[in-house]
Amino acid sequence: MAEEASILVGQKPVMSYVLATVIQFNQGAKRVALKARGRAISKAVDAAEIVRTRFLQDQVAISAVKIGSEKVGEPGKERLVSTIEIILEKKV
Amino acid sequence: MAEEASILVGQKPVMSYVLATVIQFNQGAKRVALKARGRAISKAVDAAEIVRTRFLQDQVAISAVKIGSEKVGEPGKERLVSTIEIILEKKV
Repeated sequence: MAEEASILVGQKPVMSYVLATVIQFNQGAKRVALKARGRAISKAVDAAEIVRTRFLQDQVAISAVKIGSEKVGEPGKERLVSTIEIILEKKV
Repeated sequence: MAEEASILVGQKPVMSYVLATVIQFNQGAKRVALKARGRAISKAVDAAEIVRTRFLQDQVAISAVKIGSEKVGEPGKERLVSTIEIILEKKV
């Protein structure tokens, strides 16, 4: 089992990502990165907060939050979208 | 002029918050905090990224991003909403 897992937050309901995160930790991951772009950013924050405050309370912490921009779209029609990466880490 | 400014990101178009941030820096602020809750979180990230990559390129950096939860609503009907605070800081 990898110690690091990465979950891309998109169109599904927030609970899908909450459960995917909890499953990764239960399977032995020490760190789970929740990544999102554009409007899904709010959902990624919600998922991280639900895991931290409800499902794995006192067991995981947010160790880093990074924001950035990424180019999307075809050549000539590129535009920037915002990105977020939230690292949840198992407490020792 | 205060060296720190705080801007609450809400319902207005993203450019309102971009301009409010740029104005704060032009008036002498060294740090500007963009704060948002719930769905406005994505907009706060967009505003910070537009300031950083377009309006004040090479002049400001993101020095911290914090996420959390806050109780909202009347007593008995409280629920948790996610929050974000993004600190933009003038480069020296």
